[in-house]
Amino acid sequence: MSLSASLHPPTRVLMGPGPSGAHPRVLRAMTAPLLGHLDPEFLRVMDGCRAMLRQVLRTTNEVTLATPGTGTSGMEAAVMNLVEPGDGVVVAVSGYFGDRIAQMAERAGGGVTRVSAPWGSPVDADAVEVAIRAAGNVRVVAAVHAETSTGVRQPIEPLASAAKAAGALLVVDCVTSLGGIAVEADRWGADVVYSGTQKCLSAPPGAAPITLSPAAWEKVRARETPCNSWYLDLQLLEAYWDERRTYHHTAPISMVYALHEALSLVLEEGLEQRWARHARNGAALQSGLEAMGLVLHADAAHRLPVLTTVRVPEGVNEAQVRGALLERHGVEIGGGLGELRGKVWRVGLMGESSIPGNVLLFLAVFGRVLREQGFKADVREALGAAAARLDQP
Amino acid sequence: MSLSASLHPPTRVLMGPGPSGAHPRVLRAMTAPLLGHLDPEFLRVMDGCRAMLRQVLRTTNEVTLATPGTGTSGMEAAVMNLVEPGDGVVVAVSGYFGDRIAQMAERAGGGVTRVSAPWGSPVDADAVEVAIRAAGNVRVVAAVHAETSTGVRQPIEPLASAAKAAGALLVVDCVTSLGGIAVEADRWGADVVYSGTQKCLSAPPGAAPITLSPAAWEKVRARETPCNSWYLDLQLLEAYWDERRTYHHTAPISMVYALHEALSLVLEEGLEQRWARHARNGAALQSGLEAMGLVLHADAAHRLPVLTTVRVPEGVNEAQVRGALLERHGVEIGGGLGELRGKVWRVGLMGESSIPGNVLLFLAVFGRVLREQGFKADVREALGAAAARLDQP
Repeated sequence: MSLSASLHPPTRVLMGPGPSGAHPRVLRAMTAPLLGHLDPEFLRVMDGCRAMLRQVLRTTNEVTLATPGTGTSGMEAAVMNLVEPGDGVVVAVSGYFGDRIAQMAERAGGGVTRVSAPWGSPVDADAVEVAIRAAGNVRVVAAVHAETSTGVRQPIEPLASAAKAAGALLVVDCVTSLGGIAVEADRWGADVVYSGTQKCLSAPPGAAPITLSPAAWEKVRARETPCNSWYLDLQLLEAYWDERRTYHHTAPISMVYALHEALSLVLEEGLEQRWARHARNGAALQSGLEAMGLVLHADAAHRLPVLTTVRVPEGVNEAQVRGALLERHGVEIGGGLGELRGKVWRVGLMGESSIPGNVLLFLAVFGRVLREQGFKADVREALGAAAARLDQP
Repeated sequence: MSLSASLHPPTRVLMGPGPSGAHPRVLRAMTAPLLGHLDPEFLRVMDGCRAMLRQVLRTTNEVTLATPGTGTSGMEAAVMNLVEPGDGVVVAVSGYFGDRIAQMAERAGGGVTRVSAPWGSPVDADAVEVAIRAAGNVRVVAAVHAETSTGVRQPIEPLASAAKAAGALLVVDCVTSLGGIAVEADRWGADVVYSGTQKCLSAPPGAAPITLSPAAWEKVRARETPCNSWYLDLQLLEAYWDERRTYHHTAPISMVYALHEALSLVLEEGLEQRWARHARNGAALQSGLEAMGLVLHADAAHRLPVLTTVRVPEGVNEAQVRGALLERHGVEIGGGLGELRGKVWRVGLMGESSIPGNVLLFLAVFGRVLREQGFKADVREALGAAAARLDQP
């Protein structure tokens, strides 16, 4: 029958801003028989996820779970639960996702101050500190650790200090960083860290890890008005994830299986080894792109290895390049978001997609497509530079 | 390694309130390679889902999609988008899920009137009409078509008339009915219908079909305040599902594959045939249970075939029976929710789980466990009655 016959998606090399490729073990995990969401065997799987999430997030926080939705559901859970009407909220915004946090905080009734930086740089911690003092009644500070729209890594510890000095809680978006670069919830002093599954954890999208410090949990529990969201009310979610097992929603069973397998793979590889792999492959790609004659958009000192923004050269059609990569070479990369639309490409090397073969393949086919567009890409130079970098630790 | 080794869930016969069993084709669909959420091939899959959802929901509504979360996310999307602060909202409540809608409508800022009926009966449409007139400014009326906590079918058309007469919009929860009993969004005159995937559609939990009539969509678009939820803001979701393809969230790719395959299976079987199958198996189960000497909780005239509530006989330990069924026979059923906690069992026959073999197996093992508990279950009589009913069309 034609409708079901259409379900034979082509195999792509996923080098966009996510999803990344999934390990066959993760895909296979989703074919395990369904269990009831209160079956003791399923609760064991949840407990396993909870324990592994703490390891991957580097936290001892009791309240650690996965919200039943994609990464954005983690953001919404963090913001809607933490922010009460009238709370002062300071958000570091130097990209699309920082601004999304600010929008959500406004919907939660917060009095929001955006501290901006150019898209391509991190936000200055001193400016955040000044904004906190100026705003008054700031209860929540939020920032994006790895800004998927710009490829910039935001230093978190200075923001944690600024928040703590003001008695505010720090919320950190680690959607694109978790499992790819160091995320250290406890060492940073972050109060809420959330992520997604489809980036450097390499599971399909559909669950969002989140952890809350005791101080954050205390604020959530002391709310005077209920959280705007019922579906993502963390008090209700935690009552299901902890030993109370109070029914709230039917867990996305197969997604929890996938998350469990993906976290197992992360821990089998080892977090530090995984970070080193992402760092090496990202550096190789970036060396290659520069050797090809391209300009990287993010500040050199704050470039993410997992997501690289490349400026579109003069005279080159951004969308045509992406189309040619996808259609002729099966390689997906992303275009620019927000104010970088049409100005950059976004090239991801996350999780299972972060492998030397993808670095070299991408440089080869990207260079070829760019040459067709009239840009004199030096492919040999690019591949040589990348290979040299891949040889280093 | 021990953590990943734990992912070998046992095979269960899923006869609880959901999830139901999934067809192997649905599980297999989730192992298809991941695609980017803006890949033209993935957009084709979404378009296929949208077209099939309209067929299954019996609607021509343009705005028809699946929210990126479990069934409860469909409820939250419906309520948070439709209800604006200050709107009068009348909710028909004769079970746990009706009350949940009312709670959500309160969080959305609605002035909520609950019209109640005993848990086991539908809500009287005349009482709803009276409440609408009494409340004033009623913009939204909501009801649960198949109340999963009680096993009762709520007649929808009289509620649609009452809502329409007052110029209000009707929201109908079809989480447990869609794909199992007749859901007729357009013929009913319902303005919003939402469902889940893990009941009679027999996909894993993780997506929620939803459709909005032009009138409902007009109200959503005319909102003066933004929807409380960003994640489930239908204006943002529709902009991704329709031809605009505006990035909002990373779609739960594998879940969309699963939904696509599950909808294909529904349409291959044929909706009417599927409803007849559910009706026959449900009637056989209910005949068998009564022949065994048990009392069904729901009003005889409004019993759902897909979810049967059985009263716990005097002297029988409700939880022990469920435990024995699960541990010794691998059969999952549900306990009571809310005010029916400890008083009833909930036995589901949904989607792939609605097969004659499950009816007969369940009667046999349930009877056996009840006899161990001192209840004189007549298993032969039960099996005979069920088999006779299964022979009818």
